[in-house]
Amino acid sequence: MTLSIILIRPQMGENIGAAARVMANFGLRDLRVVAPRDGWPSEAAEAMAAGSPVLEQARVYETTEAALADLHTVYATAAFSRAPARPITTPRPAITELAVQAEAGNGVGVIFGPERAGLANADMDLCAKVISIPVDPEFNSLNLAQAVAVMAYEWQMHQSQAPGDMRQMPEPAALSDLHGLFGHLEGELDTARFFFPPEKREGMVRNLRAMLARAQLSAQEVRTLRGMIRALVDGPRTG
Amino acid sequence: MTLSIILIRPQMGENIGAAARVMANFGLRDLRVVAPRDGWPSEAAEAMAAGSPVLEQARVYETTEAALADLHTVYATAAFSRAPARPITTPRPAITELAVQAEAGNGVGVIFGPERAGLANADMDLCAKVISIPVDPEFNSLNLAQAVAVMAYEWQMHQSQAPGDMRQMPEPAALSDLHGLFGHLEGELDTARFFFPPEKREGMVRNLRAMLARAQLSAQEVRTLRGMIRALVDGPRTG
Repeated sequence: MTLSIILIRPQMGENIGAAARVMANFGLRDLRVVAPRDGWPSEAAEAMAAGSPVLEQARVYETTEAALADLHTVYATAAFSRAPARPITTPRPAITELAVQAEAGNGVGVIFGPERAGLANADMDLCAKVISIPVDPEFNSLNLAQAVAVMAYEWQMHQSQAPGDMRQMPEPAALSDLHGLFGHLEGELDTARFFFPPEKREGMVRNLRAMLARAQLSAQEVRTLRGMIRALVDGPRTG
Repeated sequence: MTLSIILIRPQMGENIGAAARVMANFGLRDLRVVAPRDGWPSEAAEAMAAGSPVLEQARVYETTEAALADLHTVYATAAFSRAPARPITTPRPAITELAVQAEAGNGVGVIFGPERAGLANADMDLCAKVISIPVDPEFNSLNLAQAVAVMAYEWQMHQSQAPGDMRQMPEPAALSDLHGLFGHLEGELDTARFFFPPEKREGMVRNLRAMLARAQLSAQEVRTLRGMIRALVDGPRTG
């Protein structure tokens, strides 16, 4: 049972290494790196990792979707003002929720954006919620590894506490299935010329994805929704 | 009301700067540095502090006693095995205790030892308790600024007890609107003969409604979904 940490387009190898180091301290093992600016492997990361086994086992991906494909519930970290149409939570309750999911056998993770820019809205498409770390509004420049430290620390603290109960919930969809649903629905809506005017398409797609991600769909529900889309498009079977 | 952070004989200016940065993020202002190895002021500290006002106001002392003189309750951070004859606690209850003291008007702080060696026993003489950060015994090398980050984060959490924030979310749909969406969607799915075999209709409808209810849709999202259903059913506008 673990929490995956996913760094999206990190700029400095030093920060990847420091994140790997703090993860190991708090018992986390699964680090995923999407499109690191300075390539991979990274000497700067190794120097900062202090021998962390997490860095050696880190996996690198080209896209956020690929990095999240086998996970089931992922939350994004973001500055408050940037979060599109998702519930905002704080690290402690967020980690509790993710731990409950993990105890039920689901893959869970938290994504972090690049150092200065933060996450792009598109990176959050597959995320059910946004975690805002409560920093001082007058000095808001938590560094990447310190933000990872807060999540990893909360995860470690949670391990000794009583879990909630997810047995009531059905098997969640893998995020690759959710991404497949996005493509199917948006394709049909394109065919139907739903997105109008064209310059509004991107914002409409973002909001649509937020709505679906928020619902934390089960695998069966994704199949059902795709069946519904087909039924609505095709109309009644004839013959 | 604040928590003082006291760094005892820190070796690297970079770590002092990173500690000052994370303190500012979590609303702490009082940094005290005892006998920094590389002297003071420190360019390396300034480079890492990212403009943190905490560094500019930091005070430097020659001895631990001098640095703690005006405070009332100070806890030490230490690796578990090193703590001499004091209660050992963890960051969360420790910070709660210190905050209670601070609310009563007392000066409170946490001391941190040098990077590799940790605190000498003599540095703990004035400390009432020892805080052990629960790290993985197999990889125990939390860096100084990350240890400060954990305490500063706990302090901030204790101050704000932020339960999350829903202001980001748009106006929620009235449940009558949600019910209208149910009727619209199910009517179209009936027309498309989606619910098959008929004896399964009720269960399928129940699940469909659960999925939509869980998403906690906004009023705008309900309108969007109804527009999508119309678009999917009607196909591209002609003419």
